[in-house]
Amino acid sequence: MHSPLAFPVQLRQNTISVLDETKLPLEETYIQVKTLKDALQALGRMKTRAFGQVLLFFYACVLSGEIEEVAAAFQKTRPTFDFFQLADVLKKASQKTPTLKEAVESIIEGFDEKRKVRAQRLAEILPHEARILTICNVNGELIYLSEALKGIGKTATFFVSETRPYLQGRRLTLWELRRAHIPAQVLCDNQAAVVMKKGLINCVVTGSDRSTEKGDIINKIGTYALARLSHYFKIPFYVLIQFPRALAVEEIAIEERPPEEVFMWLDGKGPWPEALYPSFDVTPSEIISGWMDISGDARCA
Amino acid sequence: MHSPLAFPVQLRQNTISVLDETKLPLEETYIQVKTLKDALQALGRMKTRAFGQVLLFFYACVLSGEIEEVAAAFQKTRPTFDFFQLADVLKKASQKTPTLKEAVESIIEGFDEKRKVRAQRLAEILPHEARILTICNVNGELIYLSEALKGIGKTATFFVSETRPYLQGRRLTLWELRRAHIPAQVLCDNQAAVVMKKGLINCVVTGSDRSTEKGDIINKIGTYALARLSHYFKIPFYVLIQFPRALAVEEIAIEERPPEEVFMWLDGKGPWPEALYPSFDVTPSEIISGWMDISGDARCA
Repeated sequence: MHSPLAFPVQLRQNTISVLDETKLPLEETYIQVKTLKDALQALGRMKTRAFGQVLLFFYACVLSGEIEEVAAAFQKTRPTFDFFQLADVLKKASQKTPTLKEAVESIIEGFDEKRKVRAQRLAEILPHEARILTICNVNGELIYLSEALKGIGKTATFFVSETRPYLQGRRLTLWELRRAHIPAQVLCDNQAAVVMKKGLINCVVTGSDRSTEKGDIINKIGTYALARLSHYFKIPFYVLIQFPRALAVEEIAIEERPPEEVFMWLDGKGPWPEALYPSFDVTPSEIISGWMDISGDARCA
Repeated sequence: MHSPLAFPVQLRQNTISVLDETKLPLEETYIQVKTLKDALQALGRMKTRAFGQVLLFFYACVLSGEIEEVAAAFQKTRPTFDFFQLADVLKKASQKTPTLKEAVESIIEGFDEKRKVRAQRLAEILPHEARILTICNVNGELIYLSEALKGIGKTATFFVSETRPYLQGRRLTLWELRRAHIPAQVLCDNQAAVVMKKGLINCVVTGSDRSTEKGDIINKIGTYALARLSHYFKIPFYVLIQFPRALAVEEIAIEERPPEEVFMWLDGKGPWPEALYPSFDVTPSEIISGWMDISGDARCA
């Protein structure tokens, strides 16, 4: 069973169809993107995140035919992800195919295969009765993970940290898991330490927006606190990492989002500009137990 | 400048006036309590919390004249707090006054004096430029603390963890601090680790619902994670503790609130019964730097 989040962005003729993640779980609606300007708007308004951004980047290149221009515009809108490196990947792939569109299709097909392989490798490492704490959303990969665990006679239950302020855990991950009939419970981010202390979970699995050669990762705010607490409680902490990688954390621009977004998804009342909003955090490699790379690498500490 | 939360419950003739904390910060409204049944309803629906519950208990005793009955009913509705011990305090005090009402008044006046003394003592310990992380709400005491710091030439800035799911930090603490023109910023609970790592704060101050002789505390969920992270970052963690105390954590019943409350204050859509909701957590004395007792004791680790 596929999650709609496994491919939240698709190219149909000359239009990119983007799953509006801000409307989930209440509505499953798609917005239509026809120009680079539309794409940047969808990106800036967080209509799609993470893997969806990667897909949107590739399809926007197909639409406009201008890889460098699309990369520069995407990079400006969402600085944490490395779109220039994606551009390099695409340019390299397009040398082997007659059209840019075919290059994009081959990359994306490859991605999905690799995500399944990565889920298999992680499944082999996880406990027999895996009680997995997760945060944010990894675009359908937890469903692949659950299937992979089942395939080798293991079981999976998920504990989903709600992931303030955007509530990706509560809105996206809980939704996709329940839709696939996979046992999942949500908890507030500040409850994770107690869930760990009580022994309710036996591993943590998160995604990452960026990672370095050394294994430091940058991911949605809250990831670092989970890793720090897992380390204290000796609970293994595994990360699904993306390619491409950076050399060091200092090379990566960490996006600061507008303070009013701290209050998103709450009662809608405001404004309360007196807010801090670091939107990502850095987790050092020393407190990570294992890394599963999209390119097929699995490495344990 | 007093916070309305410093005395959220008041007795006027034969009616108890209760500040409806669930409506803050959008409306400052009071509900009228005339019977024990009304009082229990206000208590169960979280119209008042913490110190407000203590006040409500005392005034409900004056209203009905039945200390034991009120204590048993309150205890059943909110098991984490020790209303039986409050009943003992009241019975003892009432032996020295002609009426129960006068006993209650003397206890409550004493409370406020003690809260101010406690704020003074804590101010002496805090850094010169105190950048204080707090969670939940301590009923106006941070305003006393800010005044006490100013009185000895120190400064205070507050970082308020929003305190999911009830958002007491965002709704109550941020509101009362800004109302008193005290610098304060809110952050999501999962951002505290990063704020600590970046050195934005130099101390943590929280309240506690219960505490033990040894110094373990029970407080709003999320407190333990903050203490654990503070300990890692070597940031002093101070607790305002209540009387009375219990001998051990095991003696204290920790309330589990209904799972649907995990989704309170969000978009109001649901239900999402697949939720965990431990509403309080335990912080062991080993990771607490200092305790300020309402009865005047100040103790540092």
